Amino acid sequence: MNDEPKFAVIGGGSWATAIVKMLCENLNEVHWYMRSVYAIEHLKKMQHNPNYLSSVEFNTEQLKLSNDINEVINAADNLIFAVPSAFIYSELQELTIPLKDKKVFSAIKGIVPETGLIVGEHLNETYEIPFDNIGVITGPCHAEEVALERLSYLTVACANEDNAKFFAKYLTCDYINVKTSEDVTGTEYAAMLKNIYAIAAGIAHGLGYGDNFQSVLMSNAIREMKRFIKKVYKMKRNINDSAYLGDLLVTGYSVFSRNRMFGNMIGKGYTVKSAQMEMSMVAEGYYAAKSAYTINQDKKKKRAKTPIIDAVYSILYENKNPKKVFDKLAEKLD
Amino acid sequence: MNDEPKFAVIGGGSWATAIVKMLCENLNEVHWYMRSVYAIEHLKKMQHNPNYLSSVEFNTEQLKLSNDINEVINAADNLIFAVPSAFIYSELQELTIPLKDKKVFSAIKGIVPETGLIVGEHLNETYEIPFDNIGVITGPCHAEEVALERLSYLTVACANEDNAKFFAKYLTCDYINVKTSEDVTGTEYAAMLKNIYAIAAGIAHGLGYGDNFQSVLMSNAIREMKRFIKKVYKMKRNINDSAYLGDLLVTGYSVFSRNRMFGNMIGKGYTVKSAQMEMSMVAEGYYAAKSAYTINQDKKKKRAKTPIIDAVYSILYENKNPKKVFDKLAEKLD
Repeated sequence: MNDEPKFAVIGGGSWATAIVKMLCENLNEVHWYMRSVYAIEHLKKMQHNPNYLSSVEFNTEQLKLSNDINEVINAADNLIFAVPSAFIYSELQELTIPLKDKKVFSAIKGIVPETGLIVGEHLNETYEIPFDNIGVITGPCHAEEVALERLSYLTVACANEDNAKFFAKYLTCDYINVKTSEDVTGTEYAAMLKNIYAIAAGIAHGLGYGDNFQSVLMSNAIREMKRFIKKVYKMKRNINDSAYLGDLLVTGYSVFSRNRMFGNMIGKGYTVKSAQMEMSMVAEGYYAAKSAYTINQDKKKKRAKTPIIDAVYSILYENKNPKKVFDKLAEKLD
Repeated sequence: MNDEPKFAVIGGGSWATAIVKMLCENLNEVHWYMRSVYAIEHLKKMQHNPNYLSSVEFNTEQLKLSNDINEVINAADNLIFAVPSAFIYSELQELTIPLKDKKVFSAIKGIVPETGLIVGEHLNETYEIPFDNIGVITGPCHAEEVALERLSYLTVACANEDNAKFFAKYLTCDYINVKTSEDVTGTEYAAMLKNIYAIAAGIAHGLGYGDNFQSVLMSNAIREMKRFIKKVYKMKRNINDSAYLGDLLVTGYSVFSRNRMFGNMIGKGYTVKSAQMEMSMVAEGYYAAKSAYTINQDKKKKRAKTPIIDAVYSILYENKNPKKVFDKLAEKLD
């Protein structure tokens, strides 16, 4: 029993909870950091996370819970980060333990707002973790369906194939199929870009466009995603694999996606500020739009043609009229 | 006024009605064949089709309605066929006028069950129409959204680019963007295959699979579609263009798709017969599954890997248990 590898999950949200559930199918012990003492106490007493996926019952004997991030990280060699990208920077400020000898896989979808980097790059630059030990866990996967044990597919990407396979092994179970990939950068950018396209889908819906248009928007989005990722990191990849197209679809077509909901409010006439206040949170695609737009301005490489990202950016950051922007965007789509 | 080209639409269903609406935006006169005398009389009196898209009001002075197919075809050089593929064969039995000097574009999604051919091939073989004068009109497009004048995109494909552009011109209007293509075979097969994938999506839903699985299914479906079409007719095409991926998505994600509904009933335990009786019609994907499966058995070319088509075929035609078939299919997807 004590020979088993030590895994820790960092985060208390629904995606973190789903990942802990998967690990618990394969390990006797899972270390789990969450910020909220209340959530930890509740979990210990009631066997479920009070705030997210509360239908999931844990065997608390398996869980090593703590709100001390250093304690949790110290106890494990294999870390899975699953906090919202907007909080990763501040969450790790408290860290005193070096990460450079750990394997760190990110299940975070988005950009670190403080640095404008995707999480893998941020981990490498800030904590000197070699890229061989940095990985990405991507969907298409709504955590809510993992809670229901509905068959879902993950992709685990790492430059080092053995490390990808290692993490894949401990996530695989009856209801989770895992594929491995070497495309850390591509899968991570895909996970980030899809949130921008989900905002676009939401705006379109809010403006009154129908399903015919949505399917054209998604068909253009996947082509745009391909161009963008190719510009950032050129390698042989099939953009129609689940980690790219599947992830785009599960978000773009989900009426529960926070990004889509945010876009929908913008399309219906809310200002960006009021939509954010109404949702009492910031949709990750909001940061992603700025970051993707900025990356694409990088003069060292030829600009990728990204009419959808540009449209979302101009609505969110340049106060442009959504209807007018989408009228123009519609002419560029085919 | 009399210099304008003569167009005729064959069919009285929702898609035919939508196409007549588009043509009426561009032409003073549209010839329109429908089988039902009642529908014609109603249309003349009430300005709308009583059975389909009845919210669409026509200016009946523009319409040259008849239930005599020979009269209608005789009056026009440019024909658009928009009857369900299951009826095209019988509908054209009454034809006494040669078609070989007409331009004939098909807006039919599927296979002619009596010949096992896609409509373009059927028109060429049976009526000696040269391929230069045969075209295909595909979506992604729900007719219901055309009725609402929601922005939609069509692709018009013809080996002869001028002919494609010619038809495109008369379908384009404020709410319809039209793209042209040379890939008649590919777009037509895509329109047919998507109905099989919509059945698969329905079966999955009926069996209790969730959105995570659906996105993986669609991501695998588009890769499978690419392999299948490449086998049938190899040419340079981007499978993520709207005519392929968009068309797949608008059908696969539509809860109103008859094919998806049919699959859903199968997944929920209806037999094929009882599902067909319950729906009082045969979903086009039912024929398409058999045809696609058969085409792929053609020994002259290497078999394309088509696990989804094979799964649907075995459920519909070999009486295999949907749950078991999808358990196995799920292992093959990634």
